Amino acid sequence: MTTYARAHTNIALIKYWGKANRKLMLPATSSISLTLNDFYTDTAVTFDPSLNDDRFMLNGEEQNPVAVSRFLDRVRHLGKISTYAQVTSLNHVPTAAGLASSASAFAALATAASRAAGLNLSPTELSRLARRGSGSATRSIFGGAVIWHRGHDDASSFAEPLAIQPSLPLRMLVVTVSAEKKAVSSRKGMANTVATSPYYDAWVASNESLIEPMITALAEDDLALIGKLTELSSMRMHAAIMAEEPPFTYFLPETLRAWQLVQEQRALGIPAFATMDAGPNVKILTTEPYVDILLTALRPVFGDRILSTRLGPDASIITKEQFDDTKSAIASQG
Amino acid sequence: MTTYARAHTNIALIKYWGKANRKLMLPATSSISLTLNDFYTDTAVTFDPSLNDDRFMLNGEEQNPVAVSRFLDRVRHLGKISTYAQVTSLNHVPTAAGLASSASAFAALATAASRAAGLNLSPTELSRLARRGSGSATRSIFGGAVIWHRGHDDASSFAEPLAIQPSLPLRMLVVTVSAEKKAVSSRKGMANTVATSPYYDAWVASNESLIEPMITALAEDDLALIGKLTELSSMRMHAAIMAEEPPFTYFLPETLRAWQLVQEQRALGIPAFATMDAGPNVKILTTEPYVDILLTALRPVFGDRILSTRLGPDASIITKEQFDDTKSAIASQG
Repeated sequence: MTTYARAHTNIALIKYWGKANRKLMLPATSSISLTLNDFYTDTAVTFDPSLNDDRFMLNGEEQNPVAVSRFLDRVRHLGKISTYAQVTSLNHVPTAAGLASSASAFAALATAASRAAGLNLSPTELSRLARRGSGSATRSIFGGAVIWHRGHDDASSFAEPLAIQPSLPLRMLVVTVSAEKKAVSSRKGMANTVATSPYYDAWVASNESLIEPMITALAEDDLALIGKLTELSSMRMHAAIMAEEPPFTYFLPETLRAWQLVQEQRALGIPAFATMDAGPNVKILTTEPYVDILLTALRPVFGDRILSTRLGPDASIITKEQFDDTKSAIASQG
Repeated sequence: MTTYARAHTNIALIKYWGKANRKLMLPATSSISLTLNDFYTDTAVTFDPSLNDDRFMLNGEEQNPVAVSRFLDRVRHLGKISTYAQVTSLNHVPTAAGLASSASAFAALATAASRAAGLNLSPTELSRLARRGSGSATRSIFGGAVIWHRGHDDASSFAEPLAIQPSLPLRMLVVTVSAEKKAVSSRKGMANTVATSPYYDAWVASNESLIEPMITALAEDDLALIGKLTELSSMRMHAAIMAEEPPFTYFLPETLRAWQLVQEQRALGIPAFATMDAGPNVKILTTEPYVDILLTALRPVFGDRILSTRLGPDASIITKEQFDDTKSAIASQG
């Protein structure tokens, strides 16, 4: 029997950068994210006794199954099974978006594989499981505004939706500066920051100090403060990275150009706030009434490399029909 | 009687960013610089009993004399005079270079005004005096490779040439990303970093730890290590700035483009190292044999906005003829 699940990508407003425990994937700081409606991964999992190894198909192409297999080992351990699985994933992220998909990918895999293995995990347990695949996947188990409590062991490090969700019509614009696979993976990048940046300890302390203010700002729909805290967390993460040995930045020239445009719009009174993850692309936080104004300002420089999305829902089990619809949607893009 | 002096700009390899004492202009860290031959300020000072106020001409145009006057007050105090002065300065820095000139300006003013006031200061005393006008002017009293000891009071904070000078044919390329006056002055920028960057203390500790290795690297002509330390100090300064509240960077998109080109050249085996001060322009440290190769690589992007210079000499008293030659040179540039 095949189990299907869908999980959405998320963008951290208060960032996660650096692990306190690499084996357990415990982060050095808590983080707060928004789950995005328009970018998601659908994953089908079939535990099949006739298989001699795990198999992994992504958007119709056979992939090296090592990372998926390692994750499935954990699911098999929890489910007390030893069967290999066929995993079939569809990334519904426009290739031009240059968005990393590991958050939605491992959240969907955790959701589908645990159910397929006969487990009936709580959302918290799912979040802990997804964490072992990719840190940010922890947060993609939930929709809306989500906090990942850093915790101090496997049991205490998990995400949950914020108790008071913002009622603002939040929107995220994704400006694709480069759709290329990034030169330094987040895993390696984090490790190098921890090992060589003299600013790492101060980054941890500063970022952690933004958590409580952000919870309050989101609960109070204080857009200016949400935006201010978002930019502080992002830029301090990139500053901690820039201070590495040797110095390094994920920023490309166009990253700065997009940041400049955001600042220019803000000087005109438009609420727009930039945040960059471990890559050159710029995500712009705003609210619905300002989306068109921002698109108009950005298009002369970035053309159609800008996507806009509202907040998305929880990861969930879906039907074969929904999965097939995604397959058709991706095929028609191609 | 008019006294004429010339002083050259300098570029810090180990940066100065942030004051420990604003009144005395004591820096938070020591710094190491190279004095540049091709960019300098000539300044003429005449203490004239017929004047009712200080007057300041720069490149033929009357200027607000406030900063010059404040500096002259200190000279008058040391010289026990009360006469006002006519100050006439010529900045021999191509306008396209986008180079700040406060280092050469206050070093030249200190040299000319102290002599004109009847003082006969030692180079160390001159360096301490220049410091009161602009921190980096402290270093422009000396040629070659210079260290500014941060010190702990007015007497102990001064520059001097490194005891063992590099014998490498060092060259600095100045890539002008923008010739506009910078939006945030160094003085304000430093103060904001000290006040709001959570990375400031770590910046001070990290930068100070690069001083002794740089002295050794320069003495041993270890170009790779000189370059590595140069980039670490620069990028960590800019990272400390980026972490400010609100986040800020002096970098423009083309700043990153120039840094990328330097990294590309280095990957090809060319010794080239980037350093940026409190502005968007990129200075590239290399040695004489590689200047043409680098110019060839940079020109497709930056055209003729690239200047190259070797290391320059001490600040010194010059003749009226030398001063007049500079005036002609500037006039002919148009």
